[in-house]
Amino acid sequence: MEIEVLEGIFDANEIIAKENRALLDRSGTFMVNLMSSPGAGKTSFILKTLEGVEGEFSCAVIEGDIAGKVDSERIAEIGVQAIQINTGGSCHLEARQVNTALGRLDLGGVDLVVVENVGNLVCPAEFRLGEDLKVMILSVAEGHDKPLKYPLMFSESHVMIVNKTDLIPHTDFDLELLKETVRKMNPSVEIFEVSCRTGEGISAWCGWLKDRVRGTRAETKN
Amino acid sequence: MEIEVLEGIFDANEIIAKENRALLDRSGTFMVNLMSSPGAGKTSFILKTLEGVEGEFSCAVIEGDIAGKVDSERIAEIGVQAIQINTGGSCHLEARQVNTALGRLDLGGVDLVVVENVGNLVCPAEFRLGEDLKVMILSVAEGHDKPLKYPLMFSESHVMIVNKTDLIPHTDFDLELLKETVRKMNPSVEIFEVSCRTGEGISAWCGWLKDRVRGTRAETKN
Repeated sequence: MEIEVLEGIFDANEIIAKENRALLDRSGTFMVNLMSSPGAGKTSFILKTLEGVEGEFSCAVIEGDIAGKVDSERIAEIGVQAIQINTGGSCHLEARQVNTALGRLDLGGVDLVVVENVGNLVCPAEFRLGEDLKVMILSVAEGHDKPLKYPLMFSESHVMIVNKTDLIPHTDFDLELLKETVRKMNPSVEIFEVSCRTGEGISAWCGWLKDRVRGTRAETKN
Repeated sequence: MEIEVLEGIFDANEIIAKENRALLDRSGTFMVNLMSSPGAGKTSFILKTLEGVEGEFSCAVIEGDIAGKVDSERIAEIGVQAIQINTGGSCHLEARQVNTALGRLDLGGVDLVVVENVGNLVCPAEFRLGEDLKVMILSVAEGHDKPLKYPLMFSESHVMIVNKTDLIPHTDFDLELLKETVRKMNPSVEIFEVSCRTGEGISAWCGWLKDRVRGTRAETKN
């Protein structure tokens, strides 16, 4: 008999992340794990993304917050199913919480699930949820020096969204320096520059995402 | 014989926080624990504060970062002693790390220690360091809706600094709504509105802080 030794919370999380992955693969559902500091614009970005893929895909959102349900209410207002997870103090989502939320969705009818993680540029990067894509947002107002101070998030993410580009003229933000720093840490990262306020850059991101989601559906059909 | 049961990391932290408090009391040193999301402007705010109290007080800074030393270099550039703590992945400072840093300072000659916590609006609020004041910064760019989503930080802080007020005209930020929400959660909170970029509001904050630091010195002499 084999005995598996769990080395603490990371191993336990990894096992459930794989279960989530298997669940999503069976239904051909694409899952995005969206992470950022508080106030970088995750919910606004999700709303813009849902709008951008509307008509082609059926979507659902899993909202991770320490407390409250303001974000899931914003999502529900536009008629998209939103499941709220309150972590009750914990600063990141774990795979088991997402597993519970996935169990409440009729995954066969869902093409794209966006998980809004707790606002935190540190710990969420350590916990795999079974996602297809780790997407992080950096707001222009946070400054271009963040990658060196929060390296795991910038090196683990498949996509970096630079949000609030409409604020660039009012700050000392150096976009080229940011991109250079992040590409040194994470050469394969995809970078999109957007302003959820003006809508600039959203269609390029949505176009790219649609190709990925379509790919997942095609694989499941074959 | 009494046996003390430590209920995990919080109790252990509390014991060392009390040691730090005793150390600071002996030397009449005032300590500020400065917390915020990444990029809310902690280091710029410290630089402005040091400038504002220069001449009257002898200061030192303890810099908490996951990795790197860019912030302590910025502090050292203006001739103030800065001690860097790298948490190596951990998303908050604990009292034991601050205890080590305090041991490296000649506290008898230091009136004011500012601790820059790791950029995180969640976990730092749970770990007392032995500080006189918990000060949090919210940047205008983060939005006025943050108190309900990160309640512990807003209810635990003695002071809330609203930074980047120069960005208010370019955002949908509702300052009055923010203040109303925070005062409901935390009626005794002191609120200062500043722009580290333009310098607006800094002198009011520094004047208030100076009164507190002077009070601590006066108590030690009596």
